[in-house]
Amino acid sequence: MVNIVIDMMGGDNGFKATSEAVKTFLENNNDTFLTLVGNKEDIEIFKDYKNVKLVESETVVKMDADPMAALKDTKSSLMVAVKELLDNNYDAIISAGSTGALLTAGIFKVKRIEGIKRPGLITSFPTLLGDKKTVVIDLGANLVNTSEELHQFAKLGKIYYSLAYKVEKPTVYQLNNGTEEEKGRDINKEAFELLKNDESINFCGNIEARDVLSGSADVVVTDGFSGNIFLKATEGGVKAMSKLLKEAFKKNVATMIGYLFLRGAVKDLKAKMDYKNVGGAMLIGLNKIVVKAHGNSDPQSFLSAINLTKKLAEQNIVEKIKGEI
Amino acid sequence: MVNIVIDMMGGDNGFKATSEAVKTFLENNNDTFLTLVGNKEDIEIFKDYKNVKLVESETVVKMDADPMAALKDTKSSLMVAVKELLDNNYDAIISAGSTGALLTAGIFKVKRIEGIKRPGLITSFPTLLGDKKTVVIDLGANLVNTSEELHQFAKLGKIYYSLAYKVEKPTVYQLNNGTEEEKGRDINKEAFELLKNDESINFCGNIEARDVLSGSADVVVTDGFSGNIFLKATEGGVKAMSKLLKEAFKKNVATMIGYLFLRGAVKDLKAKMDYKNVGGAMLIGLNKIVVKAHGNSDPQSFLSAINLTKKLAEQNIVEKIKGEI
Repeated sequence: MVNIVIDMMGGDNGFKATSEAVKTFLENNNDTFLTLVGNKEDIEIFKDYKNVKLVESETVVKMDADPMAALKDTKSSLMVAVKELLDNNYDAIISAGSTGALLTAGIFKVKRIEGIKRPGLITSFPTLLGDKKTVVIDLGANLVNTSEELHQFAKLGKIYYSLAYKVEKPTVYQLNNGTEEEKGRDINKEAFELLKNDESINFCGNIEARDVLSGSADVVVTDGFSGNIFLKATEGGVKAMSKLLKEAFKKNVATMIGYLFLRGAVKDLKAKMDYKNVGGAMLIGLNKIVVKAHGNSDPQSFLSAINLTKKLAEQNIVEKIKGEI
Repeated sequence: MVNIVIDMMGGDNGFKATSEAVKTFLENNNDTFLTLVGNKEDIEIFKDYKNVKLVESETVVKMDADPMAALKDTKSSLMVAVKELLDNNYDAIISAGSTGALLTAGIFKVKRIEGIKRPGLITSFPTLLGDKKTVVIDLGANLVNTSEELHQFAKLGKIYYSLAYKVEKPTVYQLNNGTEEEKGRDINKEAFELLKNDESINFCGNIEARDVLSGSADVVVTDGFSGNIFLKATEGGVKAMSKLLKEAFKKNVATMIGYLFLRGAVKDLKAKMDYKNVGGAMLIGLNKIVVKAHGNSDPQSFLSAINLTKKLAEQNIVEKIKGEI
């Protein structure tokens, strides 16, 4: 049985969001063991559930906490959860709390798999091709990377995509400032060579940031700083359009009537492009599955993160990485 | 009188787009001298216009041409235009052709202003604050930059914004992976220090990519590679939303009816977010005004580029930069 530890207090919406998600998850899954970490008076509502262990914590790491300082707050829900994970050799941990604190705890406590140079933050993006997803790694676990690290991200991304989406030979692209082979900085040119010459990877060349959401790529590899810019700029573009659309609907009586006819379709559209529905981001390359749910998680998005984590744990993603690196 | 040289053949839509734009411009401006460079049989239609000089070229640089090779094609509309600019000491050049070729010609032929370390590509982005624009520099003229170059981009961005939008002390932000002072790579931390300590710049700290379109910043400074990712990812997010919106309208009879009521408002929204309406990007820091109109320019967007160029030339942006650097 898969064992997942959950930080119940992290995230902007804290226990309110995580508890709803956990309830729904438990109603639909009797083959997963959850360790729920949080304030005593909160988590008590789960005391009669099966396959659940409750562990008390006292504090909550703030969303903007200094990561290294957060590591020392051993009574926080995050650090108690990390301890549970390691002491009991469980499979996975999920938190919607501070990204920096979770990444730092992951790197320093859960630690890298032997042979992994740097872990990477990986998540799925919606695309214009129906349900097809594209994963991007690294989204900001690192600031600067070498070409060898980009090469390794490609391997990690490939394993992740295969397990998450049942695709045997996912296509791999490098995020770059142009599609031609000679484009980019030295690191990009070197990585292109390494990827091109690795027969285990289905490398298809460079991709520009404007084309990622079109869905042609399965896996996109980037250094962490550029990946972070990519993630947030994409989000900014989508959010700006959403806001302007909302204003357009409110413009006058005619547009308000139009909205009545379009409500459902527009809701679907917004849900599709909502980064909260992708199931969180995994810090991949560590000895355990470490999943960061979105800080602004609602019950639905936190539930997606638990479901994704279960899927990856059942397929032994960590062991598969150890086998391939 | 301001003198502008125009490459009439560059761009995906070539003479068809540029000629319409030039006609409209000439109808509304009798205080600007235009040198139009292109195929003899094409440009002849302008022979009876006032304040126009026609110069023949024979070839056209391909959109994906190798920039250094393009420099040697001295009979191309781009290189003939560059020669006209320099031989006659005109003020500005505009081309919708190959970005790489124009940037390379700008750097090697038009050359940097003394004291400028690296020129930067600068353009305006629409924001959620009505007509307010935010400019970002560098969007990809460079691959790797130093913190001193970022500092200089801030000075160039400030001058550009002041002249283009009549704002005396534009706010300057650094594009980074977080807003806190200690965020980012070494180059970002160093640039933060330089910007903070320069009293001539109204530096307001770091900004994340997701917040640029909100319009809080006047000028955003970034290295060229990250800027290029930012530009294209933003464009990708906006384009994806536009496509999904189009699909939503076509979903069923109800949504099609809804669209009839919303058509005008949605058209306004798309026009607002269309990068083609911003008037092109300037390669700033050179001895002349070098403006890259969008490769996919239609008459309206090419006209915006001519209008912007005239505005910057009338205000002597090159002399102002020389005075401040």
